[in-house]
Amino acid sequence: MSKFIIIGERIHCISPVIREAMNSMDPGPILKRAKQQLDAGADYLDVNIGPAESNGETLMKWAVQLLQSEFDNVPLSLDTANRKAIEAGISVYNRSKGKPIVNSADAGDRIENIDLAAANDAIAIALCSKAGIPADNDERMMYCQELLERGMTLGMSEEDLWFDPLFLVIKGMQDKQNDVLEAIRMFTEMGLRTTGGLSNVSNGMPKTVRPIIDSAMIAMAMANGLSSAIINPCDRRMIETIKSCDIIKDNCLYADSFLEI
Amino acid sequence: MSKFIIIGERIHCISPVIREAMNSMDPGPILKRAKQQLDAGADYLDVNIGPAESNGETLMKWAVQLLQSEFDNVPLSLDTANRKAIEAGISVYNRSKGKPIVNSADAGDRIENIDLAAANDAIAIALCSKAGIPADNDERMMYCQELLERGMTLGMSEEDLWFDPLFLVIKGMQDKQNDVLEAIRMFTEMGLRTTGGLSNVSNGMPKTVRPIIDSAMIAMAMANGLSSAIINPCDRRMIETIKSCDIIKDNCLYADSFLEI
Repeated sequence: MSKFIIIGERIHCISPVIREAMNSMDPGPILKRAKQQLDAGADYLDVNIGPAESNGETLMKWAVQLLQSEFDNVPLSLDTANRKAIEAGISVYNRSKGKPIVNSADAGDRIENIDLAAANDAIAIALCSKAGIPADNDERMMYCQELLERGMTLGMSEEDLWFDPLFLVIKGMQDKQNDVLEAIRMFTEMGLRTTGGLSNVSNGMPKTVRPIIDSAMIAMAMANGLSSAIINPCDRRMIETIKSCDIIKDNCLYADSFLEI
Repeated sequence: MSKFIIIGERIHCISPVIREAMNSMDPGPILKRAKQQLDAGADYLDVNIGPAESNGETLMKWAVQLLQSEFDNVPLSLDTANRKAIEAGISVYNRSKGKPIVNSADAGDRIENIDLAAANDAIAIALCSKAGIPADNDERMMYCQELLERGMTLGMSEEDLWFDPLFLVIKGMQDKQNDVLEAIRMFTEMGLRTTGGLSNVSNGMPKTVRPIIDSAMIAMAMANGLSSAIINPCDRRMIETIKSCDIIKDNCLYADSFLEI
């Protein structure tokens, strides 16, 4: 088994500081958040520039070059609804530390992001949904098959499709959490890789509770095979839990200092 | 699904304070540890009096009556190699809050503890080992079958046999942890209940690391169906994780205050 892959979620235009930095192409705040996440243990950094309809191509190229030049070609996940911006980002992306991730394709309007990933030898996050939230795992599996077949047909390797079961908020969808965990197990048993926006589960909960429930969820998901997640690596409890689960799963060798490595 | 059952492990003669209190039949230290564990969320209290070859019957009776009279007939797990002491404890045990637990039977020398539990309408912790550590899950399943058949033959309900996969120490047996998790899943898929001495996994690790790895392990084990564990309920991180997993598994209804309930 290979180690869990942490995709840092904190370079996201939903944050006012990051949005402002993207608007003015100010490197400072973006580099600061990148460094915090890498220091905390992120393997990949997600770069979410939002819809970016007007200047997406310029902005994504700038962000990719900025981050990769500063942080030794750190691998990135390119996150926007603007397909041309993803392509522009890939055109200047250096693969020496890992392929770019296209975040994300789904079985609906965004299925062509599979084609984009295939054409550019990239990884695609394949969201198992079409229009809204899948009702059950039959629906998740149907979308998984659609996405997998599309990728395979276009010559992608299974390893480059990371299936996202769609983590759901507990407040409102508590009775659906077992489905999500079961979906991860089914993908894993099919030999597929998995990822997802895990912190969605604790949306709307008190701030003190969120790291606790997120950590419990990631450990349960890793028990079922989850191989990656898009998270805040600066959440210390989350990182400690991921490292511990990697030890328990025998993905890396135990040392008394494993939490510091 | 029903809520996870926490068996508090801290009334144990391995602790110098408790050993001394048992030797002198001094209620104070025992009641203090009982209260701490119940306040922290223990459902059952384990009472481990050691081999207690000379005065086991008197001692177990005393401990059962002491704890049940002080804490509203708190349910207890009776833990000793002295079979007569367990019987003596059961003879004065009040079942109004739950059956007594016989801790423990195994598929070797202690298989007669199944008979003891059956004869006394008690729950038995059924350790899936015979002489030493099971080499693999084939061996665990063989012992599980032996213990299950013995209990069934004697008229026990499946619900009253709690199977213990035998948690193993990571330092030394890191590559066996996936087996333990898989065994829990197999027991669960057979419709069986499970428990075990979970904190064994972190034996020998630095004190600061133990609650972190124990919590990760319990979440992974609960994802695989673990329905109970023998733990230190005063480990706050462990209790937070158990409560969070119970929420995720939909075993109890979410409220923002769920960690305080």
